[in-house]
Amino acid sequence: MRHSLLCLSFVALSLFPVSTFSQTKSPDKNEAGIRALYDQWAKAFEARDLNGIMAVYGPSDAIVAYDVVPPLQFKGAESYREDYKQFLDQYDGPVHVEYRDMRIMSSGDIGFIHTLERFTGKMKNGQTVDFWLRATSGLQKINGKWKIVHDHISVPVDFETGKALLNLKP
Amino acid sequence: MRHSLLCLSFVALSLFPVSTFSQTKSPDKNEAGIRALYDQWAKAFEARDLNGIMAVYGPSDAIVAYDVVPPLQFKGAESYREDYKQFLDQYDGPVHVEYRDMRIMSSGDIGFIHTLERFTGKMKNGQTVDFWLRATSGLQKINGKWKIVHDHISVPVDFETGKALLNLKP
Repeated sequence: MRHSLLCLSFVALSLFPVSTFSQTKSPDKNEAGIRALYDQWAKAFEARDLNGIMAVYGPSDAIVAYDVVPPLQFKGAESYREDYKQFLDQYDGPVHVEYRDMRIMSSGDIGFIHTLERFTGKMKNGQTVDFWLRATSGLQKINGKWKIVHDHISVPVDFETGKALLNLKP
Repeated sequence: MRHSLLCLSFVALSLFPVSTFSQTKSPDKNEAGIRALYDQWAKAFEARDLNGIMAVYGPSDAIVAYDVVPPLQFKGAESYREDYKQFLDQYDGPVHVEYRDMRIMSSGDIGFIHTLERFTGKMKNGQTVDFWLRATSGLQKINGKWKIVHDHISVPVDFETGKALLNLKP
């Protein structure tokens, strides 16, 4: 899943002009369409609306996602939807995302986006979660609408200790 | 870094037609150009040729890489080159990569590629390394040549234990 929630921080971001990190071959319509897709996704995610979440993705056979959690890849809508469900089931109350250094590049009907994301939330077991991850998505414009066909979500790891690094800050 | 080495397995792969996983808007020239770039990178990597490795990347200010190791991101050629150097300095003898489920999508002068990679090698301390990772790259055709402007390399993590998962198989 793009396991994150944009909510207020996303809305605030959207009010500002394209960031200095944005590089795109068509800096207006394509980038706006890709940002709009992320906004749509955020609203669905906040609402725990699995159908709404999956609506931002391309056809099932086009979806290949590398999530921060195993397995190595999720192929198809059904497995990725289950990944989202398992994630959302762990959280209680609001979750938030803060973006930094987002970049969108697109040409014709193919694009990609990458950004650092600070994710915060409270799990049902009471644990507060607050860490930065990296998110990259590949997109395709299908029938005039941008859809995500590939997600890659991760955190770096320390090979000395074998530990995931959840305390890094940009 | 795209910390991997294609060598013989890549050459063998290149002899076969476009895989069934490949989806691209221009299935001929663009995909061939992107594959050729990866081939060029592999040769440079195998030769421990840092200049050759960095030659597959776009201009320094266009490079943003999320590597499997920290920090969260490498921005610019200098920091990413140093990341490659530190990686290569750890290995003794040949390293290999096996690809699976590679997909290339492109339109005009923007594209992205993602693949699972099995990386194997022997470190100078004698440790044998053998694990699967996920690799995604964003590409831009600049002056008629494809260049990588974004890398995202990772392994999944187990949030229960905090451990990176280096024993997963596709």
